[in-house]
Amino acid sequence: MNAPHPISWQPALSLRPLPPAMLEALRQRFGERCSSARAVCDQHGRDESPYDVTPPEAVIFCESSADVADAVKLADQYAVPVIPFGVGSSLEGHLLAVQGGICLDVSRMNRVLSVNAEDLTVTVQPGVTREQVNAEIRDQGLFFPIDPGANASIGGMCGTRASGTNAVRYGTMRENVLALEVVTASGELIRTGTRAKKSSAGYDLTRLFVGSEGTLGVMTEITLKLYPLPEAVSAAICHFPSEAAAVQTTIALIQLGVPIARCELLDANAVTGVNLQSKLGLRETPMLLMEFHGSPASVQEQAETVQEIARDHGGEDFQWATTPEERSRLWAARHKAYFSAMHLNPGCRTITTDTCVPISRLADCVVAAKQEATDAGLPHYLVGHVGDGNFHIAYLIDPSSAEQHERAEELNRRVVQRAIACGGTCTGEHGVGLHKMGFLLEEAGEGAVAMMRSIKRALDPKNILNPGKIFSINPP
Amino acid sequence: MNAPHPISWQPALSLRPLPPAMLEALRQRFGERCSSARAVCDQHGRDESPYDVTPPEAVIFCESSADVADAVKLADQYAVPVIPFGVGSSLEGHLLAVQGGICLDVSRMNRVLSVNAEDLTVTVQPGVTREQVNAEIRDQGLFFPIDPGANASIGGMCGTRASGTNAVRYGTMRENVLALEVVTASGELIRTGTRAKKSSAGYDLTRLFVGSEGTLGVMTEITLKLYPLPEAVSAAICHFPSEAAAVQTTIALIQLGVPIARCELLDANAVTGVNLQSKLGLRETPMLLMEFHGSPASVQEQAETVQEIARDHGGEDFQWATTPEERSRLWAARHKAYFSAMHLNPGCRTITTDTCVPISRLADCVVAAKQEATDAGLPHYLVGHVGDGNFHIAYLIDPSSAEQHERAEELNRRVVQRAIACGGTCTGEHGVGLHKMGFLLEEAGEGAVAMMRSIKRALDPKNILNPGKIFSINPP
Repeated sequence: MNAPHPISWQPALSLRPLPPAMLEALRQRFGERCSSARAVCDQHGRDESPYDVTPPEAVIFCESSADVADAVKLADQYAVPVIPFGVGSSLEGHLLAVQGGICLDVSRMNRVLSVNAEDLTVTVQPGVTREQVNAEIRDQGLFFPIDPGANASIGGMCGTRASGTNAVRYGTMRENVLALEVVTASGELIRTGTRAKKSSAGYDLTRLFVGSEGTLGVMTEITLKLYPLPEAVSAAICHFPSEAAAVQTTIALIQLGVPIARCELLDANAVTGVNLQSKLGLRETPMLLMEFHGSPASVQEQAETVQEIARDHGGEDFQWATTPEERSRLWAARHKAYFSAMHLNPGCRTITTDTCVPISRLADCVVAAKQEATDAGLPHYLVGHVGDGNFHIAYLIDPSSAEQHERAEELNRRVVQRAIACGGTCTGEHGVGLHKMGFLLEEAGEGAVAMMRSIKRALDPKNILNPGKIFSINPP
Repeated sequence: MNAPHPISWQPALSLRPLPPAMLEALRQRFGERCSSARAVCDQHGRDESPYDVTPPEAVIFCESSADVADAVKLADQYAVPVIPFGVGSSLEGHLLAVQGGICLDVSRMNRVLSVNAEDLTVTVQPGVTREQVNAEIRDQGLFFPIDPGANASIGGMCGTRASGTNAVRYGTMRENVLALEVVTASGELIRTGTRAKKSSAGYDLTRLFVGSEGTLGVMTEITLKLYPLPEAVSAAICHFPSEAAAVQTTIALIQLGVPIARCELLDANAVTGVNLQSKLGLRETPMLLMEFHGSPASVQEQAETVQEIARDHGGEDFQWATTPEERSRLWAARHKAYFSAMHLNPGCRTITTDTCVPISRLADCVVAAKQEATDAGLPHYLVGHVGDGNFHIAYLIDPSSAEQHERAEELNRRVVQRAIACGGTCTGEHGVGLHKMGFLLEEAGEGAVAMMRSIKRALDPKNILNPGKIFSINPP
């Protein structure tokens, strides 16, 4: 995915070399599970962002909480950076070793430790993926709803406070992580939260770690909320004359309190991409892809309400997917929109926005973003978790063109500034990483970022935990 | 409520005297809105906990964010404690000036600043009460669901991460606060969060402040999520042969995913108390008080499911309240259970537990708590937000009896230890305050509490923000 290309998307580096004594100690402790092979390091110095590969100096394949704790203790001793790595699907440069150091690959920590079906909770290791957890609980009539496009690791999803298509009904990782085991910067194991559904017991450390992008600790166990599989599920697509009409339909549904489970917008370009790859033969107009969960009667009732509202906004040609197979095919196509769109412009790269705005401002923001991209003459497509006010416009650019890159970043900047101006956020679900550090400062203000910096300094005084991400540790 | 009584429930004090120069500066800045009158200070040195009055040295009646910022700047300059005060309804000694200092009464900061009906958000000052916010938004077809028993201030509810009867469906303050304006320990104003429904932009400062009990900053503006008033609402009571049967019914409902809005348990003693005060003439057996929200058809469907499950567990004598007046009467009675129970033993005081456990363990925990109280011969009643796994057993004790006090505390201890042992929490919604500092340490462990302490030191280096609450700043 990140093959070398003519122009440099190399992030600013400030390398802290790995002392030979530390590498030796890691080899002693981890044997073959410590690798400094170039290929292994390169593989761990990238994610799905457009940045150049920025490898760590060694990769440790951790198999237990004790492995993580021991590796972090050595990193603490030698004041060397540590970056946790799940499946590498993050989008904003989170995993790049911009200060060097070691990568902790937790993909072998992939056990579902306990399912408490009667309490609707599950405890997993961080390398378990979202598809794996669902596969392991399905026969108990349960599911875990958070579904970023990639088959991400649960640890990574905690790190970026991920969400996806089901968040409109079930919330994000913020609402669905109950408890954590975390290795602190000094290599100590602590626990945050409990399996109780709510608690007022002290500072909400769980929520502090969720979304901290590996900068405050390394998660080694994660307890999640589960949900009973709905008795009835029905999915539908509906075509609209414009993106605005589709979004207005969504706004009306949310304001009425319809408990819709998924409500996704695809613009005509995204539909074209999906058709090219998935051969669904969809009409290439703006489209809502929706899903309803509940009892059969309630699903029926939601469907009727939605059809009525959609028709008022020019929605037509409802198609229903009622069998699991039909539904899976539709949702797989939606999840692959990112890769599908690559087919529109083979060889391209994408730069993707991730703003989330108060729902009443969504139609304006979507329409303006589309118009600006069209005016700028950049190929693009737009998909949106519109029930949440979150959308992604992806600019497809020629990786060899510095000018296209700059043009896409300028469009991204306008989308973000518009979102911030109307009370929204620069990132709904992808996180800050390297790419949005400037935007975070604009959004949160220097005072709030200074507070984040104080917390980081207090919990990680040597700045070893995924340093250089979210904000710079020294005020500008 | 907290009239003097023969035995001392005086918390440990470590007073930091107010320098005369600071008092003078406060008087200069605030004029008559700075009071050091004994009666005013006493009124602000208490809450609904059984502790003795522990007054601050002065009370500032703040009317704006700038007032709060200026008062905190002076407190910072003189390293003097600051305690924010809403309506004084907290239950665990949160408001007691155990290290002296000044109280910031924010009850005059009681404006609803903006209602964004189309985005389902509202921004309020911290002194607005939950009843006030609901009164001001009702005509727009909206409501704010979080309802601790008292008519608490929104600022106080944020401080303790409050919940109440609707949390089973709508979540707690953790899920329903979108953004804050906060005065930091140095008197700076910062903003956390946005009006977007979700965000991955940096550390979740909003969630860090919610539940921090005034120890990390003073909230001056709060943005809340709102909900459309449900199209149909129906409330019901159902009588059960035992608490266990009522709880088993609840467990089955939750496990089935029935979207019940409220599900409250009252034991027979609580029903007796409610009857004494509210003359409802209820059968004095364990009882569930439930409410269903949704479309008329979905409410009907939920009601049928619940009746079926309840009957399987011996539930009988369903009574439905369908008019708003009937419903309000029932819920007012429930909310007044605390005061009603006082009628059972006039002159008594209550010590109330607040554990929350994984739902599958709830029946065992409720039954054991009841049995222990009965065995100990202490009058008591039990109410529970059982849909969340949260219950309160209140021991009614003679305030002049040190022995009864000790017996009640011992029972509380057993309830908490049982909750922690089964993966639950010592406090579901009341907070830690002074009373549960030891329990927090048992529940979270020294490592997690040390992390809270590090955060506190980083954000409040002079330990001026409600010091001496949640944990002691120096490790034991």
